[in-house]
Amino acid sequence: MEDELTKERKDFLEKDYCRGFIKFCGLHALKIEKGLFESSIITGENHRTQDDFIHAGLIATMSDHTAGYAAYTLVSENIRILTIEFKINFLKPAYGNELRCRSEIVNEGKQIIVAQSSVFDLRDTHEKMVSRSTITLMAVNADKLENRRS
Amino acid sequence: MEDELTKERKDFLEKDYCRGFIKFCGLHALKIEKGLFESSIITGENHRTQDDFIHAGLIATMSDHTAGYAAYTLVSENIRILTIEFKINFLKPAYGNELRCRSEIVNEGKQIIVAQSSVFDLRDTHEKMVSRSTITLMAVNADKLENRRS
Amino acid sequence: MEDELTKERKDFLEKDYCRGFIKFCGLHALKIEKGLFESSIITGENHRTQDDFIHAGLIATMSDHTAGYAAYTLVSENIRILTIEFKINFLKPAYGNELRCRSEIVNEGKQIIVAQSSVFDLRDTHEKMVSRSTITLMAVNADKLENRRS
Amino acid sequence: MEDELTKERKDFLEKDYCRGFIKFCGLHALKIEKGLFESSIITGENHRTQDDFIHAGLIATMSDHTAGYAAYTLVSENIRILTIEFKINFLKPAYGNELRCRSEIVNEGKQIIVAQSSVFDLRDTHEKMVSRSTITLMAVNADKLENRRS
Repeated sequence: MEDELTKERKDFLEKDYCRGFIKFCGLHALKIEKGLFESSIITGENHRTQDDFIHAGLIATMSDHTAGYAAYTLVSENIRILTIEFKINFLKPAYGNELRCRSEIVNEGKQIIVAQSSVFDLRDTHEKMVSRSTITLMAVNADKLENRRS
Repeated sequence: MEDELTKERKDFLEKDYCRGFIKFCGLHALKIEKGLFESSIITGENHRTQDDFIHAGLIATMSDHTAGYAAYTLVSENIRILTIEFKINFLKPAYGNELRCRSEIVNEGKQIIVAQSSVFDLRDTHEKMVSRSTITLMAVNADKLENRRS
Repeated sequence: MEDELTKERKDFLEKDYCRGFIKFCGLHALKIEKGLFESSIITGENHRTQDDFIHAGLIATMSDHTAGYAAYTLVSENIRILTIEFKINFLKPAYGNELRCRSEIVNEGKQIIVAQSSVFDLRDTHEKMVSRSTITLMAVNADKLENRRS
Repeated sequence: MEDELTKERKDFLEKDYCRGFIKFCGLHALKIEKGLFESSIITGENHRTQDDFIHAGLIATMSDHTAGYAAYTLVSENIRILTIEFKINFLKPAYGNELRCRSEIVNEGKQIIVAQSSVFDLRDTHEKMVSRSTITLMAVNADKLENRRS
C-alpha cells in the first residue's frame, strides 16, 4: 500500500463513514489520514439523556465507529473492519453544542487492530475530553462477511 | 425501600427510560423488576451499518441504557445513575428484525453498582446472543448532578 | 472432537495449567470439563497488598489464566490460546484464606473465544464473589506461536 | 497540596510500592512524579507461561499496581487508592529480559481517577510496547478501608 491515502480513497472513506445509523445520528467525518480519523456531531435535543446531558450511547457510537474507520485507512480495499469489543470510560458529562472524536491506531497486528478514541465536548468557551476508549478490531475479507449471517 | 417496586415507580421508570436519544433510536422498556430491566427495539434501515448489519453503537447504547435502569430500580427516588465506564464484546453480527436486551445487577455497592447486559438478535426462526457487556455505574444524589456541568 | 475430554487430556491440562508464573504464585487446577475450568489458591503473605487485602493482580492473573484453560478444553491439541484482552471488575476486597475461580465460555467463534471468570473469596463462615471478568481469547496454531517473537 | 512531591513522600511511595505480592513478583519503582509512575521488573523463569512468554497476569499486575501509585501521587496522605476495574489489551507477546511500565493519569475526578498504563518489553536490541490498559481507581479515606472487610 501507498504511504498516503489517495484522494479517491479518502473520498470513499468520508462518504462510507456516514451511512445508516451514523447518518441517522448526525455524525460526519472531519479529518482522514493513515491511522487517524476524526469526526464531529452537532448535538441537539435528540442526543440527550433524561438529565439533559449528551447520551453515553452516542459518545460510545462515535468512539467505536470512528475507530473502525481509523483502522479502515490502513487496510486494502477488499478488507472490512469488525469490532470485536470496546471499553469506554466516561470522564465528565458532556453538554456542549458539538462533539469531536479523534481515533488513532495503538497497534496494528495482522488481523487484530487496536485503536484509541478520545471524545471532546466543545462548549462556549473551551473544550473538555469527556471520554477515552479502547477498541479491538478485526480485519476480515469482504467476501467472508456474508458467511457471518448464521 | 420496599421489596417490590410500586406500580407508580414502574410506570415512572418505563416512561423515563424512553426519552431523548433513546426515544430517537426507538428503544422501549419491556420488563421491569428490582435489579432487572429488559428492553426492545424493532430494527430498521436507520439502525444499520455500511455492511447491512445492526450497528454496534446501537447495541452498545441499548446495553448501557438498560443497565442504568436496572440499577435505577434499586435506588431511592432522589438518586440518579451515571455510567462510569462499560465494556462490550460483540459475539456475532446482528441482522434480525428485533433486538432485546436483558440487564441484571452483578454487584450492588454503596456507590458503585456493576451490571451485566446481554443483547439478543431475534431472527425469523431463532434468537442469538449477539453481545455481552459489563457496565460500572455510580449512584449520585440528584441535586449534585447540576454541579457536574463544569 | 469428542463430547467429553479424555482422561489423558484432562491430566495434561491439569499439569499444564500449573507452570511458570502460575506455579510460582501457587495456583492449581480444581475442576476440568469441556468449556469449564475451576482453579484454587491458598492465600498467604506473598499475595497481599500494602493494605493487607489479596492483591488485584493475583485475582486478575487467576481470572485470565483459568479462562485461557477453559478455552483450551475446547480446541484440538495443536492449538494454543492467547489472551487478546481482558476486563475485570473488583466487586469487594478479598481477605480470606482461599480464592476459587470459575471460568466459563460465553461464545466460541472460529478464532475468537470469549470467556467469563468469577473469583470467590472463601472466608471463615461464608464465601463472596470478589471479581467478575470478561476475557477475549484467540485460538492460534502452535507452530505459528514461535513467529510471534518479533 | 504542593505542586511537587516532597522527598519524604517520594521515599514513602517508592518503599510502599514494593510490598507483599509486588515484592514477591520482583517489581520495583523506577520514577515518581505527580501524576506519573514508572516501574520495572527483571524477568526470569518464574514469570513465564507454558509457551515461554512473559505471563499476561504479571503484565496486568504491573499495569494495575503502577497505575494505582500514579493516582497515589495525587492525593493527600490519609487517602488510599482502590482499583474499581481495569481493562488491558495485549499487543504483542513479551519475551525480553526486563519489563517497564509507565502509568499516567487520564482524568482526576473528586473520587474517580482514570489512569493509563503502557508496558514495554526490553529486548536485546530494541523495546516494544506489549500492552496498553485503562484503570479506573477510587480514592477512599484510609479509615474507611477497614469497614470494607464484610
